[in-house]
Amino acid sequence: MEQKVIDPVVQKALVQFKNLDEKITHFSSIIGLADWDQKVMAPKKGRSIFAKATGTLRTEIFKLSVSQEMGDLLAELMLPENFELLDAVTKAKVREYSAYYQKSKSIPADLFQEYSILTAQANDAWEEARENNDFARFLPYLEKIVDYKRKFAEIYGYVDHPYDALLDEFEPGLTVKTLDPLFAKLRDSSVKLLERIQKHGTKTQAEIFDQSFAIEQQKECNRFILPIIGFDLEAGRLDETVHPFAQTVNTGDVRLTTRYLERNVRSALFGTIHEAGHGIYEQHINPEFEESVLQSGASFGIHESQSRFLENMVGRSKEFWKFFYPKLQEYFPKQLESLSVDEFYRAVNTVQPSFIRVEADELTYNLHIMLRYEIEKALVSGEIEAKDLPTVWNQKMQDYLGVTPSTDSEGVLQDVHWSFGGIGYFPSYSLGNLYAAQILRTIQKDIPDFYSHIENGRFDLIQEWLKENIHQYGKLYTPNELIVKVTGEELNAEYLVEYLEKKYTEVYGL
Amino acid sequence: MEQKVIDPVVQKALVQFKNLDEKITHFSSIIGLADWDQKVMAPKKGRSIFAKATGTLRTEIFKLSVSQEMGDLLAELMLPENFELLDAVTKAKVREYSAYYQKSKSIPADLFQEYSILTAQANDAWEEARENNDFARFLPYLEKIVDYKRKFAEIYGYVDHPYDALLDEFEPGLTVKTLDPLFAKLRDSSVKLLERIQKHGTKTQAEIFDQSFAIEQQKECNRFILPIIGFDLEAGRLDETVHPFAQTVNTGDVRLTTRYLERNVRSALFGTIHEAGHGIYEQHINPEFEESVLQSGASFGIHESQSRFLENMVGRSKEFWKFFYPKLQEYFPKQLESLSVDEFYRAVNTVQPSFIRVEADELTYNLHIMLRYEIEKALVSGEIEAKDLPTVWNQKMQDYLGVTPSTDSEGVLQDVHWSFGGIGYFPSYSLGNLYAAQILRTIQKDIPDFYSHIENGRFDLIQEWLKENIHQYGKLYTPNELIVKVTGEELNAEYLVEYLEKKYTEVYGL
Repeated sequence: MEQKVIDPVVQKALVQFKNLDEKITHFSSIIGLADWDQKVMAPKKGRSIFAKATGTLRTEIFKLSVSQEMGDLLAELMLPENFELLDAVTKAKVREYSAYYQKSKSIPADLFQEYSILTAQANDAWEEARENNDFARFLPYLEKIVDYKRKFAEIYGYVDHPYDALLDEFEPGLTVKTLDPLFAKLRDSSVKLLERIQKHGTKTQAEIFDQSFAIEQQKECNRFILPIIGFDLEAGRLDETVHPFAQTVNTGDVRLTTRYLERNVRSALFGTIHEAGHGIYEQHINPEFEESVLQSGASFGIHESQSRFLENMVGRSKEFWKFFYPKLQEYFPKQLESLSVDEFYRAVNTVQPSFIRVEADELTYNLHIMLRYEIEKALVSGEIEAKDLPTVWNQKMQDYLGVTPSTDSEGVLQDVHWSFGGIGYFPSYSLGNLYAAQILRTIQKDIPDFYSHIENGRFDLIQEWLKENIHQYGKLYTPNELIVKVTGEELNAEYLVEYLEKKYTEVYGL
Repeated sequence: MEQKVIDPVVQKALVQFKNLDEKITHFSSIIGLADWDQKVMAPKKGRSIFAKATGTLRTEIFKLSVSQEMGDLLAELMLPENFELLDAVTKAKVREYSAYYQKSKSIPADLFQEYSILTAQANDAWEEARENNDFARFLPYLEKIVDYKRKFAEIYGYVDHPYDALLDEFEPGLTVKTLDPLFAKLRDSSVKLLERIQKHGTKTQAEIFDQSFAIEQQKECNRFILPIIGFDLEAGRLDETVHPFAQTVNTGDVRLTTRYLERNVRSALFGTIHEAGHGIYEQHINPEFEESVLQSGASFGIHESQSRFLENMVGRSKEFWKFFYPKLQEYFPKQLESLSVDEFYRAVNTVQPSFIRVEADELTYNLHIMLRYEIEKALVSGEIEAKDLPTVWNQKMQDYLGVTPSTDSEGVLQDVHWSFGGIGYFPSYSLGNLYAAQILRTIQKDIPDFYSHIENGRFDLIQEWLKENIHQYGKLYTPNELIVKVTGEELNAEYLVEYLEKKYTEVYGL
């Protein structure tokens, strides 16, 4: 085989590129820690001043990412005759920085400045609007945000649909053309399944959760389960916040938060398992990608697939509860003495249409996303305007879920995402469910006794598989490359549809 | 009065200088938070990688501080015709950056690099040496460190004694010529007072502390006392570490740590009060100095004066215990039922020569410092060599404290300071005591019923005085300027000598 020789100029560029990548990643890692700290630890009086300090470091990261040096290096490395000689890892790094560089450079600085100020103000307006059920308070900001997003979409460019340009920020390469049929299938089948469940009329014993579950016991229970399902507490932490999240500092330092509610034992438990799914992903990334832009998950959707896989496919399975319910009964003997594991399994899988996305069950959750996806698409394309949102929202709630929120606070104002300009983000949640079901199908081929492992409380082989096939790669592959590599085909809604069908047929004895 | 007009070139330099100062301070504030986190919160597997990230940010701070831009700005602002037009705050900032710039620039880069590697290795060697009571393991590193320090002293320059150049890093402007008589007086009087106490033979009931004090109760007790003595828990935190410290993020975010030992109730209590003294200082700094190099204490010695003032002059006073002992008895009724407040006061002020500095009482503590000061001076001037240290150490321990450590681990190897090159640091501790006693004298002039306030648990007026006269100024004044401004005279050992004399005469009924 012919030996390819890399030019000394390119060699030099590679060293500089590596150093720049390392510097950006180091700074980002510190920002990650600082963000976690301000949410979890910082005393309140210091936060506003500290935000200026992190603002300065964020600006530094931005400047490095769009610097002349970065531009020159990318140009050099992306020359076809040079690019083809690069190894796969360097190619992926170039891909990541180049995408960010192109996007950032394409937006005029003053436009971006105006937009940043707008979203900062919009967040305050949204908080007030939601608190006072006052959509009009938020509307002028939302209108402007939509305007900017339409402008950005034109600047970034797209082939078929302007929404593609926004989707790309969260799920690189994904388009409306691909997503529409996937989501339509999921939506239609979910609406039908929901109707069947509701017509069938069987009830689960969900009222069991309407009791007090001592928070100290909940904490012990969460600390007990975390290492069992695969989260390494020597390479991470578990803390408490009102809004649970996972934050990575590096692969040896991944921090989860959860929320304990005395009258909702499910909140902390499934919240912790969900965040652990995100966290284990990051703990498993190849140490070689440490200190580089690849040190993160492949996309929002793929990341969400790992949290949903652990929370739903594992954590809401019958086999998981066969293993874990006796332990839970030890923690809460009085509350759970009257309930069999089978009844408990059905209770945790209760389907109940509600107004609030974050409280939704596994089936109706996706309908909350479908609604948001359709609204975002129509907003960006100009089919609807921001002022139409309360009406459109409530109509779709009625169509898909059969319920209409009585206030905008419980409706169109419930989510923070639009206030920070995160249009294009919501699909990630359902993408996560779709990816997860497709991965479940594949892992069951490789580990046919997958659910026996869970029933026996053995998660090592399963986590090893996830690490080997998904986690270790970090951002090396695009989400589409990854799902094809793992499952042998592109994303297919069939698997989630079948999974839901099978699950609820069993839970509700349809 | 003639209006002074500042040249537009200087105006521009002032804006650039302010921006550069702000950037450096922002990054330093983030490093402060990160350092705290790694000691208090970080899971162990992430720390070594994260150290590389903070290393990159520290390097950035260093580069900014010694940059061409900084050099040019300082040169411009320090031109006599420009400097005289600057306000006092800007003058102080120029003073601070210029001192650092001069020192850093004077050391050749490769020399500094070698030295940095040496101290990193020396720390590991010291840890091993202390663990195995093996001075020979540390000796070659200590020899090299002393060599470097001698070189640095020559490079920095000095008038009378090479040690002056090292002292200056911790207590700007202080020299051996000033310090020698202060410390000699303190040493001689302390040795004599110790002899009198030992001859007199009175015993305190120190054995009261040799009991179990439940840690949960200790924690409550610490949380109770902190806000009372003036630490704002909304602008700070209290956590646990093996080695207690105070870390400032900004004036609204000052973090203390303490250590709870079941069989040593004094450790956490006085440790917390000590760190609170540091912390309150930083919480009280003028918000106008926020985001600038002045956002810190005047010097190591002045800082230590504030922790010692609160720990000793307040926290070990009879009036403090008249106020607080009944509360402590509520926390520990069984352990303390048999002891009167007077007996307790005397027990917490027990004088007992020991080998270990950090466990020393208020009187013998300074003798531990005198010994280190004398050794450091002699090392730097070449009167002794590193290999002589065990002998010299033990001889001085015998001379001043009347005890000889049986091992080097309990002797010359006990402190971390030399392993990181901190020669010149130790005097700060006794300087703190000297400053504190002098400040006590002054505050008692302004607040004649100072100790009645303490007896009544009222710390507001006292803290207001400290804020007004000391804390608010941050680094605006040099330590000497500050002590003269506050007390009307330069540092004078008389006050501490008298304070100790009076206190122990009472405690021991001499």
